[in-house]
Amino acid sequence: MKWKRSERLVDMTQHLLDHPHRLIPLTYFASLYDSAKSSISEDLTIVSETLEARGKGHLLTVPGAAGGVKYIPKLHETEIRAITDELKERMSQSDRLLPGGYLYMTDLLGDPDLMNRIGKVFATVYANQKIDAIMTVATKGIPIAHAIARHLNVPVIVVRRDSKVTEGPTVSINYVSGSARRIQTMVLSKRSMEKGKRVLLTDDFMKVGGTMNGMKSLLAEFDGELAGVAVLIEAEHTAEVLVQDYVSLLKLKQVDERNGSIVLEEGNYFQKGGTQS
Amino acid sequence: MKWKRSERLVDMTQHLLDHPHRLIPLTYFASLYDSAKSSISEDLTIVSETLEARGKGHLLTVPGAAGGVKYIPKLHETEIRAITDELKERMSQSDRLLPGGYLYMTDLLGDPDLMNRIGKVFATVYANQKIDAIMTVATKGIPIAHAIARHLNVPVIVVRRDSKVTEGPTVSINYVSGSARRIQTMVLSKRSMEKGKRVLLTDDFMKVGGTMNGMKSLLAEFDGELAGVAVLIEAEHTAEVLVQDYVSLLKLKQVDERNGSIVLEEGNYFQKGGTQS
Repeated sequence: MKWKRSERLVDMTQHLLDHPHRLIPLTYFASLYDSAKSSISEDLTIVSETLEARGKGHLLTVPGAAGGVKYIPKLHETEIRAITDELKERMSQSDRLLPGGYLYMTDLLGDPDLMNRIGKVFATVYANQKIDAIMTVATKGIPIAHAIARHLNVPVIVVRRDSKVTEGPTVSINYVSGSARRIQTMVLSKRSMEKGKRVLLTDDFMKVGGTMNGMKSLLAEFDGELAGVAVLIEAEHTAEVLVQDYVSLLKLKQVDERNGSIVLEEGNYFQKGGTQS
Repeated sequence: MKWKRSERLVDMTQHLLDHPHRLIPLTYFASLYDSAKSSISEDLTIVSETLEARGKGHLLTVPGAAGGVKYIPKLHETEIRAITDELKERMSQSDRLLPGGYLYMTDLLGDPDLMNRIGKVFATVYANQKIDAIMTVATKGIPIAHAIARHLNVPVIVVRRDSKVTEGPTVSINYVSGSARRIQTMVLSKRSMEKGKRVLLTDDFMKVGGTMNGMKSLLAEFDGELAGVAVLIEAEHTAEVLVQDYVSLLKLKQVDERNGSIVLEEGNYFQKGGTQS
């Protein structure tokens, strides 16, 4: 059956968007739609230009025999700003304040649409970098890690506080939690990561960066390389941050338990001028 | 700027697929593309027919002033079979066997593309049911819960083994873990769920169903209603399963530590004849 251009465009769009950062040979589309490669190329130009015009990313064409096309999700700066503004507004609600000055954000981490959009933001930031995996600590970072990983087409590695029988042999390290200066343990299943990978660390919240620093030590045990650190919210504090080159969307300036105020401002993403390259 | 049909089709497809199970008024597209509603309707027919022909779901048209169009992800039976077969093949690798007969599956749960496809499978199964939220237990069920939730456009609720300061007030219950018959505790943040919700439970693995039964008890504390139980893999055993109406993709028949064999067969999804309605 020969497909009409209109049908090809719909199907190509769904297929490409469902497989971000994956090389799809032109022959895949040509044989699926029983169409000439020249028609497919024209279709792909329409798809790419439309996605780009709407700020959803673009198609990267890889020439040659082993070539093809790859969808690179990349949000416009305006959309990144809109997502961050929404996150800031929702995080500023005073009923999020918990005893001790902690902020409740479990509902946000359980919102798959918000997580999807935040995943796209960080996939935009690291779109041009080599990333082999996303690493996070159980449990709150998991939805963010998966959202980023989905848009970068890489696996998620989950570090735990304790080892479990279902994880097999593990590597464990001790680290100093930044703010409380307590010794803590982190455990990673040996088979969850090969040696020498380039890894992006992520978490929902970062204070001094003790947890991130712990993950860095763990990464070193696997001869891994740090590709970057992506956090939703960093907290302001006087101590020096233990990790460099992190990207945050929001910064928590101040929490006042008495009058229930939460003061947030934009994170360093906006100072850094966006995309890391 | 007036959009061409080809551009509208690409953009509509990306927008609809990015917002599953969400009602989008026709006026949204009409004003975005500066096009007549009649043209938009024709476009939507092309999108819906193409998605359906490719086994990716369809568009549901809701008539009336408050109407619009909704993308309902629904995989073809052949694709559900292909995903299950892939999962079965990967799960059968003998190096997954851990001491005690446990199976290593952390890598699969960290594969965002596989999780995405499994999410679509369960979103297909429960496409016609009223589901208000997906509930799972930390930590291994989280990627599955988020994948399903994303395709059904509902929030994820994560039950924990212990309470944390960042969760606020919690409700806790005790339950009997099915196989070991140990008393265990489950904790849920009070503000993570409103009363009276219809909830789908999910997890990666189910033996007798003790954990699921625990979540059922917790759900009862929130006057919630059980919408169903979705598990990747159920294990065969002699005891009676503690939950009814579960859907599994695979069944673990036998594990032999000595010769390293893992015997899996299809889960009850294939006996039930698919979609729950």
